[in-house]
Amino acid sequence: MPARTCCIYAGRMSSIEGRSGSALLVIDVQVGVMSGTWRRDEVVTNIAGLVADARAHHIPVIWVQHSDEGLAFGSADWQIVPELVPAAGEPIVHKRYRSSFEATELESLLAERHVGHVIICGAQTEFCIRNAVHAAYERGYDVTLVEDAHTTEDTAWDKRPLLASQIVDSQNRVCWQYELPSRTCTLATAKDAFAALSL
Amino acid sequence: MPARTCCIYAGRMSSIEGRSGSALLVIDVQVGVMSGTWRRDEVVTNIAGLVADARAHHIPVIWVQHSDEGLAFGSADWQIVPELVPAAGEPIVHKRYRSSFEATELESLLAERHVGHVIICGAQTEFCIRNAVHAAYERGYDVTLVEDAHTTEDTAWDKRPLLASQIVDSQNRVCWQYELPSRTCTLATAKDAFAALSL
Repeated sequence: MPARTCCIYAGRMSSIEGRSGSALLVIDVQVGVMSGTWRRDEVVTNIAGLVADARAHHIPVIWVQHSDEGLAFGSADWQIVPELVPAAGEPIVHKRYRSSFEATELESLLAERHVGHVIICGAQTEFCIRNAVHAAYERGYDVTLVEDAHTTEDTAWDKRPLLASQIVDSQNRVCWQYELPSRTCTLATAKDAFAALSL
Repeated sequence: MPARTCCIYAGRMSSIEGRSGSALLVIDVQVGVMSGTWRRDEVVTNIAGLVADARAHHIPVIWVQHSDEGLAFGSADWQIVPELVPAAGEPIVHKRYRSSFEATELESLLAERHVGHVIICGAQTEFCIRNAVHAAYERGYDVTLVEDAHTTEDTAWDKRPLLASQIVDSQNRVCWQYELPSRTCTLATAKDAFAALSL
């Protein structure tokens, strides 16, 4: 594997016409989703930093909030974590499937804001983060996954353990410098994600 | 996690109109891709069984063959493994990106064959298999991943090991009984994948 170097935005070239903007997607950072996740507090702190940086750079912040049979709309577990507070005017997208684009208004919110590049953070890594990444670049968006701002919990398959830390590492690895014909998927740290936009 | 039960095809309801058929996609089972993969011989044997079963059930078999800077078109490593031989009339899709749908004729081949359900096997789990799964269900296909007929190799991220067996387990876990509004993603074993079509 070649050395990891910062190439964020250098090759950005969203395939969606007239979409030169970026947006921060904060996905499922909800009480019940984040409870028991790997490095929960560190990830929430990093996401808080991303939200502050996005606002400072006038980059839209779009919140995604999940509900389903196991996470009831309006319940205590469904609330966004107390450390994060959506600002007035920041849309909250309510979804019921893993992909933030599935049966939601996310696509139209991004179009209205001329967004061709989504910066993704939140939880859970292998479900709603992973699906947001794929759904976005299948739709032609450039994607930046914030490598230290997504998480999940330890789990298992057929009684064989799968560690959250490894699920996060694996997701970061496959999002690292993946180029498609007219768009890219890459990584940034929370510290650097918006610094690159000021260059 | 609830018990794993066979629900293959029971809820199949592809969202693509007029597409009642299934197809087997055999992805990147090439000499250089399979070399050094986890349970390589067992996976190739399982794929050979799938190909035989698909033919017996008159299900189209579509082969996908990758090339890029590291895997030269026409090279020895680029060849499909010697244990598997495409039959006359079975299309071979040449791709250069992780997704079998990206800049290829796969979509039109599936449309011509009225396919709304793809049965996926091959390599590598976290790259071209994962992307085929997401690209297919983002396009409205029902997806069955054959849980014991895909593989990858041991790797690492930032010097932390990621075992092929865990990458395979993790992929199977997220493909297990995932329902979208008008389509499903699920698992089958190689032994059972086509048996369900005879019910």
